[in-house]
Amino acid sequence: EEVDKLLALKCQIKGDAPSTKNFVLKCPKGTKDYTPIQMAIRESVFNTIVATFKRHGAETIDTPVFELKETLTGKYGEDSKLIYDLKDQGGELLSLRYDLTVPFARYLAMNKVSNIKRYHIAKVYRRDNPAMTRGRFREFYQCDFDIAGQYDPMIPDAECIKIVTEILSKLELGDFVIKVNHRKLLDGMFAACGVPDEKFRTICSSVDKLDKTFWEDVRTEMIEEKKLDPEVADKIGIYVKLQGGQDLIEKLLEDEAIKSQKAAVEGLQDISLLLKYCKLFGISDHVSFDLSLARGLDYYTGVIYEGVLKGFTHDPNAKKGDESVSVGSVAGGGRYDGLVGIFDPKGRKVPCVGVSIGIERVFAIMEARAIAAKTKIRTTETEVYVVSAQKGLLEERLKLCRELWDANIKTEQAYKANPKPLNQFQYCETSGIPLAVIIGQSEIENQYVKLSNTITRDEKNIPRDQMIAEIKSELEKMT
Amino acid sequence: EEVDKLLALKCQIKGDAPSTKNFVLKCPKGTKDYTPIQMAIRESVFNTIVATFKRHGAETIDTPVFELKETLTGKYGEDSKLIYDLKDQGGELLSLRYDLTVPFARYLAMNKVSNIKRYHIAKVYRRDNPAMTRGRFREFYQCDFDIAGQYDPMIPDAECIKIVTEILSKLELGDFVIKVNHRKLLDGMFAACGVPDEKFRTICSSVDKLDKTFWEDVRTEMIEEKKLDPEVADKIGIYVKLQGGQDLIEKLLEDEAIKSQKAAVEGLQDISLLLKYCKLFGISDHVSFDLSLARGLDYYTGVIYEGVLKGFTHDPNAKKGDESVSVGSVAGGGRYDGLVGIFDPKGRKVPCVGVSIGIERVFAIMEARAIAAKTKIRTTETEVYVVSAQKGLLEERLKLCRELWDANIKTEQAYKANPKPLNQFQYCETSGIPLAVIIGQSEIENQYVKLSNTITRDEKNIPRDQMIAEIKSELEKMT
Repeated sequence: EEVDKLLALKCQIKGDAPSTKNFVLKCPKGTKDYTPIQMAIRESVFNTIVATFKRHGAETIDTPVFELKETLTGKYGEDSKLIYDLKDQGGELLSLRYDLTVPFARYLAMNKVSNIKRYHIAKVYRRDNPAMTRGRFREFYQCDFDIAGQYDPMIPDAECIKIVTEILSKLELGDFVIKVNHRKLLDGMFAACGVPDEKFRTICSSVDKLDKTFWEDVRTEMIEEKKLDPEVADKIGIYVKLQGGQDLIEKLLEDEAIKSQKAAVEGLQDISLLLKYCKLFGISDHVSFDLSLARGLDYYTGVIYEGVLKGFTHDPNAKKGDESVSVGSVAGGGRYDGLVGIFDPKGRKVPCVGVSIGIERVFAIMEARAIAAKTKIRTTETEVYVVSAQKGLLEERLKLCRELWDANIKTEQAYKANPKPLNQFQYCETSGIPLAVIIGQSEIENQYVKLSNTITRDEKNIPRDQMIAEIKSELEKMT
Repeated sequence: EEVDKLLALKCQIKGDAPSTKNFVLKCPKGTKDYTPIQMAIRESVFNTIVATFKRHGAETIDTPVFELKETLTGKYGEDSKLIYDLKDQGGELLSLRYDLTVPFARYLAMNKVSNIKRYHIAKVYRRDNPAMTRGRFREFYQCDFDIAGQYDPMIPDAECIKIVTEILSKLELGDFVIKVNHRKLLDGMFAACGVPDEKFRTICSSVDKLDKTFWEDVRTEMIEEKKLDPEVADKIGIYVKLQGGQDLIEKLLEDEAIKSQKAAVEGLQDISLLLKYCKLFGISDHVSFDLSLARGLDYYTGVIYEGVLKGFTHDPNAKKGDESVSVGSVAGGGRYDGLVGIFDPKGRKVPCVGVSIGIERVFAIMEARAIAAKTKIRTTETEVYVVSAQKGLLEERLKLCRELWDANIKTEQAYKANPKPLNQFQYCETSGIPLAVIIGQSEIENQYVKLSNTITRDEKNIPRDQMIAEIKSELEKMT
């Protein structure tokens, strides 16, 4: 505080205003503002996603942006260090939410909900190393859809995968694949390879990095950081290169090391049923059983999956230095049957399966595409602009605006008493406003308005009392 | 940390799992979850508000939930103590946003925007004393609309007030009044009463409490806490009881003490013009010039206003103990011409005026009303439920669901292999799903489905290849 006073004094002596001089004008690291054009893109993407969730009968809920610190403790494995804590200003210790899944589980336990199909679109927070151009932020949106309840195997799980295919198809992001795997199969595979039990989760975290790094790096991490026997790592290396369909399931069910592991066999049976349902949903072409898929989070217990854009995929088997690594993962999820039970005072379990759409990357792609195509994106929906052809007509314009707004027509006017006609028409053009209502002294005296189509430049005189009806019919024609 | 270890040890000795035993299952103080029914109410309110903002030609932006701590410093006067800070985990010092206005000003300065009309709907954070049942939370939504730019006097200001009347009318919250006042008039009035310059802001904060407390309490605060001469306070007491229209403006322009204050006269001229424009907008009945309106925030420089629901208003002139104090303020705003300049490195000014809808109170009223009226609120939009009349038809149902989803029909089914028919029909009724597609063995063999209207109980058999067309035509009829 003493230092502050001295600095303030020093500023006064130098004649500077301290607040403006030293002030840094920026967003916090890893965050950004959304401009109106970015918001227009975001709104259209959200509309597509929400429409899909609603098509599958989902409700929506919301939870606070922060949770009690202890609610988040111990749920995210190695990633827990990325949680933002709030300052202790007296009262409860709080943290910003890291995902929407843990708050959802807390919600189910707290409100004793045992059946729900809900979506939740909200921002989450991670103190990660940001990569802004590739859509990795510290504040970002997640769009989650989850089905909670005691149901028959793989029916809700397959619907989650169906939802991902519907969303990725409708967003027209190019070809994509949904990789599926199973935590029980991974555990069984680790056991079959000779990984010690207590290293399952940490080795799983290493495998999870295969979508953005090379096998040889992952192998080095397993051996050097995680002290795994090189022979064990090499056995894992053989399995994680496998991908396929029912054929691969059959092959693995005949693999001596795998078939002796009960968990692995259960996992394979689940995946077999899942692939069957995916076929009935007509989405087999998009689904690939892939043993390299691991997912980093601790809470998964069954099927896991990840949606990857093919145009942006990294091949973990490629040789190092081949080309720049680019991550195409835009959706991920899986089954987590134990999470709600951790929160429930009586340990009551609610099985859950869900999917999260990683929307920031989708925004980044859509935005780059709009810029490349020089698409003109409207950021307002204004239908009519009220134009003064002469000076001194502000009061008439205000009356016209009132009439248009009250008739539910989206209307703007210049906020100047005497705007120049040219400026008004230029505003219509820049904003893409389709109709202009033009008034001058003679229009007012003869009780009509000039209605101009700003695209075709057609103009016509309309009696003032027919203005609303005429505008509505013109707008109707345009849609 | 030592204590933690000892506690953990103690738990181990007692054989308890520490995490579940001591865990508190709750939302942070002053925050709450939104259930699907609350979300359905919230969505309809937001739709009304956004439609109004769009009718007036607004774009939308978004800013991060936290800002650099220094961005918020010194903007909120006495309320700054309510700001949430994040813990210092290395890197920048951050705080959660307290409102949407300061981030908006930071956005304008940072992006060198000098003209924009934008809305922003997002949550803000205040470490205030929560009053959950009356809609006062620590995390709550604000819906802001602001017009930035160098324009002619009172044209954007009057539009903001018009917007408030449109929103409050459409939400059907009963009769309301929009109180208007002017910071320059307040300053002139304080000067006229003999308030020392340096006490203007703090006395303004006291006056601001008149909407929820009694004049005698405000007077006591002015005298005892803020050391104002009792005679000066009593002079203020006479002015703040005044309210009216153009008549009151004329009366004040003749008041000896007021008319000698340049600021007061400028303020009165602005309000006179504002009331004139409000008359042209046809909203005079809802607007009242009220000298007791002060608004707590430091950054206002011109017109200020507040929308109050008459059914929920507190009368500051009422005698103490009359009845329970209830606050009906649901909208507020004003002109802040200096705020952007504080952020701009060159001090470039961008005049702004805006309004914020205090939506939590509106939700509280709507929710109480829905409960009282026992209105059935649907939380999903599902149109069709696929029903198995017999066992063993899961695969057929999956195929039907696929066909319906792909035809953009909102469809659900049971997540059981063999659900009971009764349970399926009950689900339709509880969720308000209007149509059921029913299949049994004979339907499958003869390639048709039974289509049932769950409201009228009408049933008909439809050839399988005409199912989609028939359902679409039924849904069309219902809207």
